[in-house]
Amino acid sequence: MVVLNPPRANHPRDWQPIVNALAAIVGKDGVVRRKEELLVYECDGLTSYRQRPDVVVLPRTTEEVAAVVQVCDRYQVPFIARGAGTGLSGGALPVEGCVLIVTARMNRILEIDLPNQRVVVQPGVINNWVTQAVSGAGFYYAPDPSSQIICSIGGNVAENSGGVHCLKYGVTTNHVVGLKLVLPDGTIVDVGGKIPEQPGYDLTGIFVGSEGTLGIATEVTLRILKAPEAIHVLLADFTSVEAAGQAVSDIIRSGIIPAGMEMMDNFSINAVEDVVATNCYPRDAVAILLIELDGLAVEVSANSQQIEAICRQNGARCIRTATDPIERLTLWKGRKAAFAAMGKISPDYYVQDGVIPRTKLQYVLREIESLSAKHGYRVANVFHAGDGNLHPLILFDNAVPGQLEAVEALGGDILKLCVQVGGSISGEHGIGADKRCYMPEMFSQVDLETMLLVRSAIDPKRLANPDKIFPTPRTCGEAARAKAHEQFPHVDRF
Amino acid sequence: MVVLNPPRANHPRDWQPIVNALAAIVGKDGVVRRKEELLVYECDGLTSYRQRPDVVVLPRTTEEVAAVVQVCDRYQVPFIARGAGTGLSGGALPVEGCVLIVTARMNRILEIDLPNQRVVVQPGVINNWVTQAVSGAGFYYAPDPSSQIICSIGGNVAENSGGVHCLKYGVTTNHVVGLKLVLPDGTIVDVGGKIPEQPGYDLTGIFVGSEGTLGIATEVTLRILKAPEAIHVLLADFTSVEAAGQAVSDIIRSGIIPAGMEMMDNFSINAVEDVVATNCYPRDAVAILLIELDGLAVEVSANSQQIEAICRQNGARCIRTATDPIERLTLWKGRKAAFAAMGKISPDYYVQDGVIPRTKLQYVLREIESLSAKHGYRVANVFHAGDGNLHPLILFDNAVPGQLEAVEALGGDILKLCVQVGGSISGEHGIGADKRCYMPEMFSQVDLETMLLVRSAIDPKRLANPDKIFPTPRTCGEAARAKAHEQFPHVDRF
Repeated sequence: MVVLNPPRANHPRDWQPIVNALAAIVGKDGVVRRKEELLVYECDGLTSYRQRPDVVVLPRTTEEVAAVVQVCDRYQVPFIARGAGTGLSGGALPVEGCVLIVTARMNRILEIDLPNQRVVVQPGVINNWVTQAVSGAGFYYAPDPSSQIICSIGGNVAENSGGVHCLKYGVTTNHVVGLKLVLPDGTIVDVGGKIPEQPGYDLTGIFVGSEGTLGIATEVTLRILKAPEAIHVLLADFTSVEAAGQAVSDIIRSGIIPAGMEMMDNFSINAVEDVVATNCYPRDAVAILLIELDGLAVEVSANSQQIEAICRQNGARCIRTATDPIERLTLWKGRKAAFAAMGKISPDYYVQDGVIPRTKLQYVLREIESLSAKHGYRVANVFHAGDGNLHPLILFDNAVPGQLEAVEALGGDILKLCVQVGGSISGEHGIGADKRCYMPEMFSQVDLETMLLVRSAIDPKRLANPDKIFPTPRTCGEAARAKAHEQFPHVDRF
Repeated sequence: MVVLNPPRANHPRDWQPIVNALAAIVGKDGVVRRKEELLVYECDGLTSYRQRPDVVVLPRTTEEVAAVVQVCDRYQVPFIARGAGTGLSGGALPVEGCVLIVTARMNRILEIDLPNQRVVVQPGVINNWVTQAVSGAGFYYAPDPSSQIICSIGGNVAENSGGVHCLKYGVTTNHVVGLKLVLPDGTIVDVGGKIPEQPGYDLTGIFVGSEGTLGIATEVTLRILKAPEAIHVLLADFTSVEAAGQAVSDIIRSGIIPAGMEMMDNFSINAVEDVVATNCYPRDAVAILLIELDGLAVEVSANSQQIEAICRQNGARCIRTATDPIERLTLWKGRKAAFAAMGKISPDYYVQDGVIPRTKLQYVLREIESLSAKHGYRVANVFHAGDGNLHPLILFDNAVPGQLEAVEALGGDILKLCVQVGGSISGEHGIGADKRCYMPEMFSQVDLETMLLVRSAIDPKRLANPDKIFPTPRTCGEAARAKAHEQFPHVDRF
């Protein structure tokens, strides 16, 4: 059905007319060409992949983005949008011979509509600024990736980012109600709106999480929520992973939906105590749960008591409850510092992002332990237990040749395990450049083909963030191509 | 960009080979051809549009649906899926020379997975059966259209149906996590899954609400929720619409999200008291609010007190609260009977479905009153006030020539008013055949064009439920075509 265009030519091209056309749109100071300045943009938060862009362009408005994209369309140059560059799957990784469109200057909050609980922002606005802008009136923006003080809303939209409060409030797609988009041919289009009930196709939904492959969002309409009256945080420590996992299941079964429910294993507990010394995470606990409850004071208090009882029934030794902001921060401190702590106890770490049904938690954690032993690399588990979103942190030393490849293989085995138990290869970091070779583990050829039908309809020249999400033979092996041809001999789909 | 195939030929065709091919798939008893039997299928809940299908086919499995669709693809016959036929926008209306695929035999609940809170059903399963199947274990399925005891899940998916509890729990799209689909060429594809976190494009989201224009869902994976511990219903009566509207705004502003918040005007109150005599809706009230709260007992009780205070501050004369199931049913009785009551006091009624920002409620209700006076037809207002989803019921007599056209024009004026204040032309009934001429009121040509790009990618022959959602010149006037050509001279898009 889909016949994609031939692969992009890799021959050297004359960039001067392109650079001139871009400078005419955004001004000379909006175009970066010097090699040493371009270095900053050669990777995002996934530092193991690097590719220097040929040109970086910094537009300020929707119209400038549209004009830039039209230049790319005219010269058949691939373009990649980049927000703050904090993504962990290489979604903003440049490709050879590309223009990188950086949204850093598109950092204005365009409208705050409190009665309708909407905020309209440019994509370069930092996640945390939204809450800051409305907290005085008693509102907040729910999705809270751990990078929320530096990551941009545009990047959140591209990767459909999550955070610790997704268990109760959902991920980015549940909080984006409308978008102004620049499509890959430079057309400006509005999808969704302030009102959630929109007839026709849900293009907002398909765009969120499409990782820049369908165009660029230049205005984002967000839903904000009323800040809860009360927040409690509970820290419960367990002597086995099974007991902690059972407590998670029992809490969900009780009908309570905590705002967040995080688990850390013994290795992570000791790593954070070594580095940040919270002095409240018991070093001999096999696992701890951090459970945040929010809502009305009476509701939080009642749920808090019930959760404490459930944890005790499952053998929790000690339960601490924090109700004021400072105590709560203390309990959260270790969890928030966990990734940084790994960076201090190991030269490098590789973070994976898989999802499993909650009911498989104990089994999967045991299997990860076996895989860790088999591959010979230590794995720390710090994760969103409530929604089964695992973040195994694999410790290694990138200076030792071969270690990166080995931990990537271990990470891949963990993803396959997630799929095997009915889970997913990404919870909140996206597929990007990093995990596209694993897409066929989760989706059949015809499932991927259906996504590519949509891709080809919106981006027929495949200029918008190419080589992301979908597997290609160049990186994922000629075998994939051969297999695809065997199954679908009538179509050249990669 | 999109070049659609030429319009379908309307010449008489030889149905015999098609009927034979269909009978070979579903058996002779699965194919309906007798004129008097076909009459049942000539309209759905929107009875003012009628078109008899040429063939009705009743498959039992995904594979049978796929084979039927392949026959349609081979013979270039348009096909339309139909669930229980309760839709109010003519989404299941046949077109000339079509095969109607009725899902009545696809009525099995395939899987109940309580630990993961998922139920997998065939599309012909009735909405209410899902709750019945899991209520013993303390769960329920949240979307509750007023037709829930007769409407099918497949129809709910197609129209992205709502209900009185959407305010807190969202519409169908928020409760469908995965689909097995038959695409318009007969390909079977899986989108989404049991796990909500799915990488790649959100095809589940784009399919829900696509009104059968992208294919047919043959298995639907639903999210079920834990039944709340307590439910309270409050009935508050007001002496002005402004006061009731202000109470709605103040409740939302307080941060409480009721499960449902319905408003009825004086005309509706008297109509239901005349017909069902609840004896608890005050006949002299200008408006009443029915507010349902659910959650923990302590939470519901606290919120109930706060809402009562807000209503009194806004001049509510009398507030009744129902806490046990029988009392709650009494308070709901009038609201649930409202549409039927209109049917008893008027030969016919036409129900409209528009959405407005809550902040515009008072203004829009006043304007509807003016429009009602101007057109000379009585309008009753019974609606989901919490999410601004209006259901004006226009009373008329279809036996009087010209009245249907006149009330359709009045309905159209109400929709335009909704769009003018920043709202939507459909909250939960869909666009179907009924409202597609109003799509350009809400969407620009380029917005619609972007939806059509997706349509054309998935259904290039435009056989899947044609003449729905998108305006066509045949029904919406040649002017639309001329305008489109003027804007996009390179494409024949209608």
